[in-house]
Amino acid sequence: MKVEEIARLIDGKLCGAGEEIEIFRVASLVKAQINEISFVEKAELLTFSNASCLIVPENFNSEISSALIEVKNPKLAFAKAAEILHSPKKRDSGIHPIAVIAENARIGADVFIGAFAYVGENSVIGNGTQIQAGSKIGDNVTIGQKCVFHPNVIVEDSCAVGDKVILHSGVVIGADGFGFVRDGVNDYVKFPQIGTVIIENDVEIGANTCIDRGSLGLTRIGAGTKIDNLVQIAHNVQIGKRVVIAAQTGISGSTIIEDDCVIGGQVGMGDHARVLSGAIIGSQAGVLPGKIVRAGVWWGTPVQPLDEYKRQNAHIKGIARLKEEVKKLKKKLSGK
Amino acid sequence: MKVEEIARLIDGKLCGAGEEIEIFRVASLVKAQINEISFVEKAELLTFSNASCLIVPENFNSEISSALIEVKNPKLAFAKAAEILHSPKKRDSGIHPIAVIAENARIGADVFIGAFAYVGENSVIGNGTQIQAGSKIGDNVTIGQKCVFHPNVIVEDSCAVGDKVILHSGVVIGADGFGFVRDGVNDYVKFPQIGTVIIENDVEIGANTCIDRGSLGLTRIGAGTKIDNLVQIAHNVQIGKRVVIAAQTGISGSTIIEDDCVIGGQVGMGDHARVLSGAIIGSQAGVLPGKIVRAGVWWGTPVQPLDEYKRQNAHIKGIARLKEEVKKLKKKLSGK
Amino acid sequence: MKVEEIARLIDGKLCGAGEEIEIFRVASLVKAQINEISFVEKAELLTFSNASCLIVPENFNSEISSALIEVKNPKLAFAKAAEILHSPKKRDSGIHPIAVIAENARIGADVFIGAFAYVGENSVIGNGTQIQAGSKIGDNVTIGQKCVFHPNVIVEDSCAVGDKVILHSGVVIGADGFGFVRDGVNDYVKFPQIGTVIIENDVEIGANTCIDRGSLGLTRIGAGTKIDNLVQIAHNVQIGKRVVIAAQTGISGSTIIEDDCVIGGQVGMGDHARVLSGAIIGSQAGVLPGKIVRAGVWWGTPVQPLDEYKRQNAHIKGIARLKEEVKKLKKKLSGK
Repeated sequence: MKVEEIARLIDGKLCGAGEEIEIFRVASLVKAQINEISFVEKAELLTFSNASCLIVPENFNSEISSALIEVKNPKLAFAKAAEILHSPKKRDSGIHPIAVIAENARIGADVFIGAFAYVGENSVIGNGTQIQAGSKIGDNVTIGQKCVFHPNVIVEDSCAVGDKVILHSGVVIGADGFGFVRDGVNDYVKFPQIGTVIIENDVEIGANTCIDRGSLGLTRIGAGTKIDNLVQIAHNVQIGKRVVIAAQTGISGSTIIEDDCVIGGQVGMGDHARVLSGAIIGSQAGVLPGKIVRAGVWWGTPVQPLDEYKRQNAHIKGIARLKEEVKKLKKKLSGK
Repeated sequence: MKVEEIARLIDGKLCGAGEEIEIFRVASLVKAQINEISFVEKAELLTFSNASCLIVPENFNSEISSALIEVKNPKLAFAKAAEILHSPKKRDSGIHPIAVIAENARIGADVFIGAFAYVGENSVIGNGTQIQAGSKIGDNVTIGQKCVFHPNVIVEDSCAVGDKVILHSGVVIGADGFGFVRDGVNDYVKFPQIGTVIIENDVEIGANTCIDRGSLGLTRIGAGTKIDNLVQIAHNVQIGKRVVIAAQTGISGSTIIEDDCVIGGQVGMGDHARVLSGAIIGSQAGVLPGKIVRAGVWWGTPVQPLDEYKRQNAHIKGIARLKEEVKKLKKKLSGK
Repeated sequence: MKVEEIARLIDGKLCGAGEEIEIFRVASLVKAQINEISFVEKAELLTFSNASCLIVPENFNSEISSALIEVKNPKLAFAKAAEILHSPKKRDSGIHPIAVIAENARIGADVFIGAFAYVGENSVIGNGTQIQAGSKIGDNVTIGQKCVFHPNVIVEDSCAVGDKVILHSGVVIGADGFGFVRDGVNDYVKFPQIGTVIIENDVEIGANTCIDRGSLGLTRIGAGTKIDNLVQIAHNVQIGKRVVIAAQTGISGSTIIEDDCVIGGQVGMGDHARVLSGAIIGSQAGVLPGKIVRAGVWWGTPVQPLDEYKRQNAHIKGIARLKEEVKKLKKKLSGK
């Protein structure tokens, strides 16, 4: 693709010559070579580049010989250029002869279903969706259009997945939530786990992540939310739109995370907590059951505003000195 | 099912009229509608309900128009009602034509084995057990009666699973434990991982949880124990009866957890620790190797009794004030 | 196998009689019986043993009736004896009739491929490698010689795995890294995840662990590195040789762990951190983004040298006393 065309598609301004240069692929700034495009987030980060073209911030001044495309947000423009140059692999539509599809399942147009995949009774697969080898879709499941399920994804009975959802390998949607009632000294009785899961449009969920079904109601993942690998989402959790959750975080039952929150890795949240829109929670933080977390940056266990966390840490580091001072005071006093 | 019959089956007292009302399903208190049954844990929590029937505590006084069933433990009775009204889906017995079963495997009566499932040599599957699509049972494995294995469960060679065990999707039973011996500067030699795993009756294990085989001996999960998603149980761990372990907790090698303990989520336990019967360990706690944790409630890293943890946290919050006081004392002293 | 032969193979000195004794298997010191071999790490740990043969430290003095083999490192020698006596189960080579192998995949000699396994286009499987039931190998993947993949392993497109690599059940190699760029208020755009993963020789990776592909470059796991269950390795992470990583640890993007580090369980590392060769990081520790961790033992969140961590913990425990002392000083001062 010509530099000129890329500039047009990512809404950038091509500076100087070079519009005829051919670009084959994206690359990192350091490794990019001829016929490759990369990006510079801040002018001062650029020392050299062999890239044929660079996406740069506006009013970029450089002696560099690469063709330059000026944009407002170079990283975003680069991501868009990558989407254009490296469109995700699309398997030819068709159902592999060794897949098992229930007779009354409804499979849309242009669908790919790989080897050893299973689709249960009354389930619906939307147009253009790709279900790779070994994935298992239960009964009464609805899958939207243009989804990509990597190998060995599980969607249990009665769950619903929207359009353009990406599920990575080993994801489990709709396992039973974890709820038991003690019956005397000798037994636990399973609390009913007969709800379901709704995954809205444009959600991406990382490898081996688990999203449990609601016990009586729903577990819901809002549109545009992105969840990393090995995350645990318990029954009846409600996650809003455009929430980002990093790897190995665990959210307990009935907790609500509102739109546009960012949750770090290995965070733990108790049940019935509520994270208000715009909150950012640092990695390894712990949110107590029932806690309300307001907008702002939060850190530590139990979670507190980052400023307080830092102040407290400084205080802890200062205990040794404080001890010394008390010792001196004691000496002074008793010395009289 | 008639209200009268439900009352009888859950051992409750039907109050007032309504014994002829038909109940089709359970629901949450807020969402329940006509022909649905819900429950009230405490009288003061009830503001309204459209449920046709409510399970309530004894001596419940209410103006509500729903039929009432009085019981000692409403949540437990509700769970039992749900078991009756929503008996788990039972697949028709039979082995899917695209499953692979070793010739010398012994498959009990009324067993369901789904598509792409595999059962290895000399393995035994008990009566009434259901093994869903894509699960793999190794060689010399014994599975009891009336188990339910969700899709893509793995049970490796020589492990033994009791009766009525539920394994959720992606569970891995019997992977090698993690043990290596350093051989000079250039190599690790694998310590033998040739033991096995025993899962006793009535155990339930959550999605993508891993239970490693013993290195030389056994890893054992006691009867009635319930384990959530993404939990790690290392080699030679001994877990007692009716233990509850929440999501993403990790238990290191040879640690013992006695009967009736409750372990929160994201807890980490070092190796060779021992958690005595009746201990409750809060989420994200850390138990050091070799530590003995007695009955009671424990919290924090390293784990300490909840009271001490709270006191310590209060002390930490008080450092700033302490600092101020020392400052004042200093001033006062030097002012003389 | 005769004791004499084992002594020779593990380079030990057979003491006293017994060279003709037959050994069938290894066992733990406490459980070992006739025809079994066990080991003693320190002489004082031995109280009794029914083992027919014991591997013991040099200059071991004992009245015990078992045959003794003296070596420098008994645990290492025992591991080697176990390797000899319990060579890992080797499936007969051959491709299961219900496996799917792309026509242009190149399968080496003496390869086992189990039922429901899938090998994609242009992929290469080296001699002697065993791929168990349900594993899925994408397109353009290279797998070396003598690897063992347990059931339901996933290796996504274009990843490369060296020789003698063991991947346990449910491992996911090469899922997309977690990177998104905010596009205005309503959308996240996926940052390209078009790099790959290289797993070098002699690596072992535990069940359900995830190793993401590089975004633009590589994620690399160095030779001889051992990774436990449920670990998360993000895009572009570089792990050196002979690194040991315990269960449930998570390493964020672009972080570097140099050779011979030991990382405990449930550790979290921010992105772009660097752990220098020889560092040991305790369980549940947290490494901040960009942090450099030098050789030595580290603990806590944020991570600090173990000595400092201990000192700080002692200080925290001392706050209550400090408070008392300040109170007394105040009284004394105001009492004048």
